Amino acid sequence: MRCEPVAEGGFDLFADDRLILAHRPETPSFFLGRGEERMEMYRGNFDIEDYVTARLPLAHAELSREGDDWHIALSARPGDPTLLALKLTQESGRSILSVEARDPSFNRFWLRLVAEEGEHLFGGGEQMSYLDLAGRRFPMWTSEPGVGRDKTSPLTFEADRTGRAGGDYYNTNYPQPTFLSSRGVAVHLETTAYSILDFRHAGFHELEVWAMPERIEVFAKGSIGDLVTAMADRFGRQPPLPDWAMEGAIIGLKHGAGSFETLETYLAAGVEVSALWCEDWSGVRETSFGTRLFWDWVASDKRYPQLKSRIDELRARGIRFLGYVNPYLCNDGTLFSEAEAKGLLATDDTGNTYLVDFGEFDCGVVDFTIDEAAQWFEDRVIGENMLDLGLSGWMADFGEYLPIDVQLKDGADPKLMHNAWPVLWGAVNARAVAKKGRSGDVVYFMRAGFSGIQAECPLLWAGDQSVDFSRHDGLVTVIVGALSSGLLGNAYHHSDIGGYTSLFGNVRSAELIMRWSEMAAFTPVMRSHEGNRPKMNLQIHHDDEVLAHFARMTQIHKALLPYLSTLRDEAADRGWPLQRPLFFHHEDDALCYGVFDAYLLGRDLLVAPVWQAGETGRTTYLPAGEKWVHLWTGETFDGGEDASVEAPIGTPPVFFRQGSSFEALFAGLAALSAPSPS
Amino acid sequence: MRCEPVAEGGFDLFADDRLILAHRPETPSFFLGRGEERMEMYRGNFDIEDYVTARLPLAHAELSREGDDWHIALSARPGDPTLLALKLTQESGRSILSVEARDPSFNRFWLRLVAEEGEHLFGGGEQMSYLDLAGRRFPMWTSEPGVGRDKTSPLTFEADRTGRAGGDYYNTNYPQPTFLSSRGVAVHLETTAYSILDFRHAGFHELEVWAMPERIEVFAKGSIGDLVTAMADRFGRQPPLPDWAMEGAIIGLKHGAGSFETLETYLAAGVEVSALWCEDWSGVRETSFGTRLFWDWVASDKRYPQLKSRIDELRARGIRFLGYVNPYLCNDGTLFSEAEAKGLLATDDTGNTYLVDFGEFDCGVVDFTIDEAAQWFEDRVIGENMLDLGLSGWMADFGEYLPIDVQLKDGADPKLMHNAWPVLWGAVNARAVAKKGRSGDVVYFMRAGFSGIQAECPLLWAGDQSVDFSRHDGLVTVIVGALSSGLLGNAYHHSDIGGYTSLFGNVRSAELIMRWSEMAAFTPVMRSHEGNRPKMNLQIHHDDEVLAHFARMTQIHKALLPYLSTLRDEAADRGWPLQRPLFFHHEDDALCYGVFDAYLLGRDLLVAPVWQAGETGRTTYLPAGEKWVHLWTGETFDGGEDASVEAPIGTPPVFFRQGSSFEALFAGLAALSAPSPS
Repeated sequence: MRCEPVAEGGFDLFADDRLILAHRPETPSFFLGRGEERMEMYRGNFDIEDYVTARLPLAHAELSREGDDWHIALSARPGDPTLLALKLTQESGRSILSVEARDPSFNRFWLRLVAEEGEHLFGGGEQMSYLDLAGRRFPMWTSEPGVGRDKTSPLTFEADRTGRAGGDYYNTNYPQPTFLSSRGVAVHLETTAYSILDFRHAGFHELEVWAMPERIEVFAKGSIGDLVTAMADRFGRQPPLPDWAMEGAIIGLKHGAGSFETLETYLAAGVEVSALWCEDWSGVRETSFGTRLFWDWVASDKRYPQLKSRIDELRARGIRFLGYVNPYLCNDGTLFSEAEAKGLLATDDTGNTYLVDFGEFDCGVVDFTIDEAAQWFEDRVIGENMLDLGLSGWMADFGEYLPIDVQLKDGADPKLMHNAWPVLWGAVNARAVAKKGRSGDVVYFMRAGFSGIQAECPLLWAGDQSVDFSRHDGLVTVIVGALSSGLLGNAYHHSDIGGYTSLFGNVRSAELIMRWSEMAAFTPVMRSHEGNRPKMNLQIHHDDEVLAHFARMTQIHKALLPYLSTLRDEAADRGWPLQRPLFFHHEDDALCYGVFDAYLLGRDLLVAPVWQAGETGRTTYLPAGEKWVHLWTGETFDGGEDASVEAPIGTPPVFFRQGSSFEALFAGLAALSAPSPS
Repeated sequence: MRCEPVAEGGFDLFADDRLILAHRPETPSFFLGRGEERMEMYRGNFDIEDYVTARLPLAHAELSREGDDWHIALSARPGDPTLLALKLTQESGRSILSVEARDPSFNRFWLRLVAEEGEHLFGGGEQMSYLDLAGRRFPMWTSEPGVGRDKTSPLTFEADRTGRAGGDYYNTNYPQPTFLSSRGVAVHLETTAYSILDFRHAGFHELEVWAMPERIEVFAKGSIGDLVTAMADRFGRQPPLPDWAMEGAIIGLKHGAGSFETLETYLAAGVEVSALWCEDWSGVRETSFGTRLFWDWVASDKRYPQLKSRIDELRARGIRFLGYVNPYLCNDGTLFSEAEAKGLLATDDTGNTYLVDFGEFDCGVVDFTIDEAAQWFEDRVIGENMLDLGLSGWMADFGEYLPIDVQLKDGADPKLMHNAWPVLWGAVNARAVAKKGRSGDVVYFMRAGFSGIQAECPLLWAGDQSVDFSRHDGLVTVIVGALSSGLLGNAYHHSDIGGYTSLFGNVRSAELIMRWSEMAAFTPVMRSHEGNRPKMNLQIHHDDEVLAHFARMTQIHKALLPYLSTLRDEAADRGWPLQRPLFFHHEDDALCYGVFDAYLLGRDLLVAPVWQAGETGRTTYLPAGEKWVHLWTGETFDGGEDASVEAPIGTPPVFFRQGSSFEALFAGLAALSAPSPS
C-alpha cells in the first residue's frame, strides 16, 4: 500500500492504483471511543447492544516515513496529543496497518475505507443470507444462526418468542471480519473482539471493533482467483479431501445398533455409501425436548454393542464409520470427572467449575486456553476414544457457545476468546488427527469458525437449516454459505440433506429431501441427517421414491470423482473452493455478481438448484463468453443471458461448459441417471 | 438551583437540597456530537435509527458568576475552546439552564442528571405501557402508538409484518420530554426535536436531543401535588369541563341518519346521554379496507339530511351533537381546492401540494406554520362548518403525521415541527372555539400532544386501544395514559369504551365492553365508539345485557357530578388531574409507587378496574393512613395493605375514603345501581 500525504493533516492510502483510504481533517477515517456493551446469551443466541459514551473523530494526522514504512500519528486536532499511532508496513502480498491506541481507556475503534458506487462485497465468514454484503451491516460474533432468520416469518416469531432463537440475516456459526471487494481488494481485521462490517454508507465502508484491533491487513490482486489464493495463503488450507469421502454419501442414522440394519436398506436400494455416521455412538439421554445425545465421548456399549468389531466389518466392505463430538462434557459422564479432577475445566468467578445449561443437563467447558486441556482432549478423547475405536471422522459440533462470563485458565477475556473458540476447537481436532498420522484421511466437519478455521477444519458444514425452502433458513442458504466461506479459502463445504431443524410443526417434505439431494450431488460431500426430530420427520429410507432418487444422486456424485479430484488439486495448489460464485471465473460479466442461488462447481459445471417448493423448472443466468450445455437434454445455451430449463424432480438444473475436458464424463451422467420410468 | 464549583473543572447543581447534576472531568455530565438519523414513516408509524458519528464528552467546565446567574463554559479539555455555553438563571418556581453550542456542526446533545437508587420517574407525556419510567428508555416522537405494542404478541407480529404498525411500549400519540421524580423534582427539556429520556443507567439519567435544546428547566417542590401544579402553571390549563359532558355518556354512532334512531334505543334503555357523536357527519367513502370517513369537513346532506335541524331538535331534549375533524383535507373534497387555491397547503420539494396517502385516498396538509392557514381552518372550517352548524364538540383527530419531508411555508424544518404539530393543531381548535365565545362549553378531544397541549386541549382521549384485555394495548393502558398525562397537567382524560382497533380477527367481547364501561364511569367523561370495524364487532346496543349494564354505569357517572365538579375546581385552582396515581396523595407510602392499574379519582375514590379477562374479583393495594370503604358492600378495609374484593360484572372494585365529605353520595351509588337480579 502506498501512502500519500495530502494537504494539512490528511493522507491517502493506495493499494496498487486503488484508493483504499482517504483521510481528511473534515472527513476523518479514524475514530476512537468508549462503549459499554450489554451481551446476553440464551443457549447460543445473543442479545447484544452497545452504549457508546464517546466517539472522537481523529481529524488530524501527522506522517513520517521510515524506509518503506510509514508512521501515522492521529489526534483530535493539530497540537493535541496523539491518540492513535499507526504503522504501515509492506509484506509480500499484503500491506499491514498496525494499530496502537495511546490511551487504554478507549475500547471502540472505527475505520472508514473508501467505497465505490456499484462495488460488490463478499465474505464476512460463512454468511447464510446474503452473498453480496453491499448495503447491509454484518456483526461478527459466532453464535447460533437462528431458526427462521427472518423477522417477518411466523417461524422466526415463534422461535424468538419461546427462546429468543429466531436469529436474523447476519447470524452465523462462522463469522470472519474479512471481506473481498469487486475492486480486487481484500481487507482483514485482525481481532477476535466483536466487530461489525458496515456496508450501508455511500462513499465509505465502516469497520467497527469493540477493542483495538491488532492490525488491518489489505490485499490487492489482479483477479478474484488470486485474491482467494491470497486468503488461503493467509488463513491456511485444508488437507486434501480423501477419495472415500467423495465416492458416495455419508448416511446419518442415530438409532443405535439398528442403524447398521437400516444402512442395509440404503445399500440394497443402490445407494453409493461412503460412510455410516452415527451421532449417538456415545449414547443418548431422554429429556422433555426429546432424545438428546449423551455428551460423554466414550463409545456406548449399551447403545452400540461390540462397536469396534462392527466398525471393522463395515470397513472391510469399504464403508467408513463416523461419530460425533463437541467441546463440552456432561457432568453426569465419566470424562467430566476426569477433566475436572485434572483442573481442565473453565471455572466461574467463584472458582467452581462453570456449568452450561443445555436443557435438563449441564456441561463443563474444556478450557482450551491451556495446553494440558487441549492435549488431554486430543489424546484421551479424540485419540483413544474415537480414532483408536476406528472412527474415520465425526461432526465436530459447536464452538460458538463460549460463555462471556467464564473464567479462563490463562486469564484471557472471554469476550475476546468467544470468537477465537471455534478455531481453538478446530485445532484440537486437527492436532488429534495429525498425531495419529491420519490428516487427509479422517474427515471431521464443523459449522463454527472464525479467522483461521481454514487451517484447522477439513470440511465445513452449513449448520442447522430449517427443514424448508425458506429464503433465509432453507435450502438456498447452503449455497450462500458455501460461496461466501469459499471465497475466504474454505475449499470444502457441505450440508445436512433435507435440513435439520424441525420446530413448531415445520416438517420435511419428500420434495425437500429430493431437491436437497440433487444439490448435494453437486457439492464436495453428500451427507444425510435425520434431523432434530427424526420420528416426526420423513427420512430417506421411509419412502421408496425418495430412496431411489437419493440412490441415483449418489451414483452421479460418485461418477463426478475424476472431475472433483482435479478441483481438489486446485484447492491444494491455489486454495480455490470447489463451489464458486459465477463471477469467480467471469469477473468482467457484471450480471454474474447478482447471482447468489447458482454456482460453479469448478470452472466447468454450473449448478442452479431448485430451491423453492412446487417448481418444475428454473431460470438462471449463464456467464457470457461460453456456451453451456444442459446436462440432461444436451441443449446448448449461449452465455450472457438467462436460460430456462425444465427441472422435474430427478433432473436438477445443471450445465457444463462446452469445451470442457470433462465433456464426456458430464454427458455420461444423463445416461447414468435417467429417471426410472414411473 | 444552586451552583457549586468543585475541584478543577467540576461543579454541582442543587435544587433545594437535592443534587441534580454532578459534573466532574472524569465523569462528565454533558456531551455534544453529530448524528445522521434515518427516519421513515409508514402511515404514522416510524422506523427511526441514528448513526452517531461523534460524541464528545465535555470534561472541563469553567464557571463564572453574574449576580444570581451562572455562566458555565464547557470544553473537551482545559485550554480547549468552549464548545457549549450554559447559563443558569432562576425564575419563580424553576431554574433554567439555557444551552448554546458554539459550533453549529453539532446536532446531538446528551445530558446526565443524577439518579438515585429506588427513584421513581413519571411523565414522558401520555405513556400507555409504563407509569414508572425507571429502568427503561423512552423516545419522544409523536406517532401512532402501535397495534399490540408488544413484540411477543401475535397481534403485534401481524401488524408489524403487514404494515410495520405493531409499535412498542414507548410509542404514543402524545410524548413530552418532561418527567417528574419521586425526589420532588421535575425536569423539562424545551425542544421539539426528537429526544430520548433514558432511565436505564445506574447513577444517572441520560437525556438525549437530536438538536441543541433551547433550555432545560428544573422544578423542585415540596410535594407531588405542588409539582403537578407547577407543570400546569408551566404548560397551561384546560378550560373547566362543562357539566353537560359529565352528566351522561357521549354515544358514538356512525351509520348516518340512522344513528339518531339508534340513539333512541339507548335512551329507552335508561342510558344517561350527554351527546350523540357522529364521526361520519361529513360523509364516508368506501375503500378496500372498509368504510372510511370523508375528510372534507362539511356536513354531508346525503348522509345526514337536515342535519342542522336534527341537531337543534336533540339539543332541545338536552342532548348535544358532536362531530369529527382532522388537519387533513382529502383531494377529492371541496375544502382541498379552496385551501390549495389560497396557498394554504404544504408543498413537496418541487413546489406541488404535498399529498399524504391514507389508503386509497390522498390528502393535503393544512400548513399551520402560517397564520392565514390557521385562521382559515379556524373560521371557515371549524367556525362556519362545525360550530355554526350546532356542534358542541368533536374528535380533533390526528396531529402525529406531519411528514418529515414536507416543505413548510415558514421554512421550518419538518423534523423540528413534527412534534410541535399536535400543539399547533390543538391551538387551531382552541382559537376557533374561543372566537365564538364557546370555550368551556364546546368539548373537543385529542389523542396527539406534546409540550403545551395542556393549554390547547380541553380533554385528552387515550387513542386507539385494541379491543382486548392485553397488557400493552388493552383496557389497562388507558389507566397508564390518564395517570402519566395527568401528572403533566392534563386534568381531563377519557377513552373509547370497548377499545377501537379490531384487526386480524381480534374482536370485542361483551365482557370487554362492560369492564371498560365500569372503568369509564369513574373517569371524567364516558364515551362509546363503534370501533374501526363496527359491523364485525359487538356494539353496546346489540346486546340487552350490555346495554342495561351500560345504562347503569351512565347513571353512576351522572350521580358523581357533584363530586367531579369539586375536582374540576381543583383542576382550575391547582392544575390537578381528576385521575391521580395512588402516591399523589400518599407520597410517603412507598408501596403506592408500584401501582399502575388503579387510581384515585380525586382524593376520595380509589378505582381498581378489572382489566383482565375472566376475572371475578380483584386485589389492589390501598394507601396507608386511611380506611377505605368498598363501594358495593360497605366493607371497610385498612389502608397499608392489599384488599381483595369480589367484582362480578356490574360491581367494579371501587373504594371511598372513610371520612370523605362525599360519603353519603358514594354510599348512595350502591343503591342506585344494584345489579338487577338475573
